Amino acid sequence: MLVIGERINGMFQDVKTALAEKDAEVIKDLARRQMAAGAWALDVNVGPSISDAKGGMLWLVEAIREVTDAPLAIDTAKWDVMADVVPQVPGAKILNSSKADVEIASQFVGLAAEHGASLIGLTIDADGVPGNVDKRVELGAQLITVAMEGGLEMDQLFIDPIILPVNVATKNPMHCMEAMSQLCAFADPAPHLVLGLSNVSQRCSNRNLINRTYLAMAMAMGLDSAILDPLDTELMDTAITADLLKEKMIYCDSYLEAARPG
Amino acid sequence: MLVIGERINGMFQDVKTALAEKDAEVIKDLARRQMAAGAWALDVNVGPSISDAKGGMLWLVEAIREVTDAPLAIDTAKWDVMADVVPQVPGAKILNSSKADVEIASQFVGLAAEHGASLIGLTIDADGVPGNVDKRVELGAQLITVAMEGGLEMDQLFIDPIILPVNVATKNPMHCMEAMSQLCAFADPAPHLVLGLSNVSQRCSNRNLINRTYLAMAMAMGLDSAILDPLDTELMDTAITADLLKEKMIYCDSYLEAARPG
Repeated sequence: MLVIGERINGMFQDVKTALAEKDAEVIKDLARRQMAAGAWALDVNVGPSISDAKGGMLWLVEAIREVTDAPLAIDTAKWDVMADVVPQVPGAKILNSSKADVEIASQFVGLAAEHGASLIGLTIDADGVPGNVDKRVELGAQLITVAMEGGLEMDQLFIDPIILPVNVATKNPMHCMEAMSQLCAFADPAPHLVLGLSNVSQRCSNRNLINRTYLAMAMAMGLDSAILDPLDTELMDTAITADLLKEKMIYCDSYLEAARPG
Repeated sequence: MLVIGERINGMFQDVKTALAEKDAEVIKDLARRQMAAGAWALDVNVGPSISDAKGGMLWLVEAIREVTDAPLAIDTAKWDVMADVVPQVPGAKILNSSKADVEIASQFVGLAAEHGASLIGLTIDADGVPGNVDKRVELGAQLITVAMEGGLEMDQLFIDPIILPVNVATKNPMHCMEAMSQLCAFADPAPHLVLGLSNVSQRCSNRNLINRTYLAMAMAMGLDSAILDPLDTELMDTAITADLLKEKMIYCDSYLEAARPG
């Protein structure tokens, strides 16, 4: 399971304050703790309320790079921010994210290929988030085609079928699972499948329980990466155990400890 | 999720002692508590060490029937015990279990149909537990055919793909999930799919974590019934939450409480 740590995001108050006060220690601490908890990569998002998104993103990247060489998922919906920031990020990086419209996706694939980066592609287009399975699969297949034509390897492409909160989009969790199950078979090797996991439980009670239950279900259907909070120990234990049950590791009595870094 | 409570089984010391001392209160208490925790049916198993299996089974049934009308899963591998006991069980019942060999399965289907009972059919035959997915699906299809020809409705058939412990049969959890996913499509309406859940974690550490993680994964792949311990609250919360994510219920903030009896 490729875990992308979600915590360095200006939506969280501690990160928002650290950005405003240029307090790099808060960011470095979040980077260290997420990596120690088993993150493979770190999402980097300045949040919606910042005035200088490019400057904020580069400041976050600089702080994180003082403590880890992990891949950084540059998380912005703005093309100009992405195009400006990505060339300045040292080391491994992931563009998070592109929509599936051919023109838009081609632009993001080109930028990723140019800089040896990976790309998260969303199954969303000008019509919005699909209301059914077929359209998700169609847009996922479109992303695969654009990525292949643009020179990305399949292990550099992460398809995100877009999970919506279960309290408002009741069919959505099943739709995403069914789409992932089908998308696994669209290329060999297959692209990665990723979710912004915590979205499934937005404004719900029992958020952690919903998150870890859906994580296990989605991993059964082919999910092999997720943007989530690695500081949620029960969630990480679920991810490790689901990998065990998918035979991604061999059982030993200390399999949880064995799977954790350090 | 149709939960079949596993606790009234002579493998557990409290039940073994109660059977030896004819202490019906222990059994009635286990029946009441499992039903209060959300069981739909109760498994009834005298355990391997009893000398009078028929007498023990009927005594258990009598004790349970004093407190609940829930379906009882008469759990024995011995045909003579099954054939003798089933006609004497008042109310709803499930034969647990038949192998998939046509001759054996036909016998069990006949007994179930005669007494309006359901049947758990195992994907195992004279060659033993299949080492791959295809043979599990083949034996599941064979059980469907025999059940249909013998007059059982599909909602009276529970196919059990046989889960083995992950510490000795590493590929088995995936095999069972893939077989279930395929068997969902073999009849319309589909038969139920059931597992003896706790077997996946036999002699493992972190048993409860492994059980509830596999339950969520298997429910994503079509599992809609399981023999498990309903007194494990975290396990039951996982089952309820997986049903929520499969849209078997509609979200409300108190969805866990709403799904529990009483």
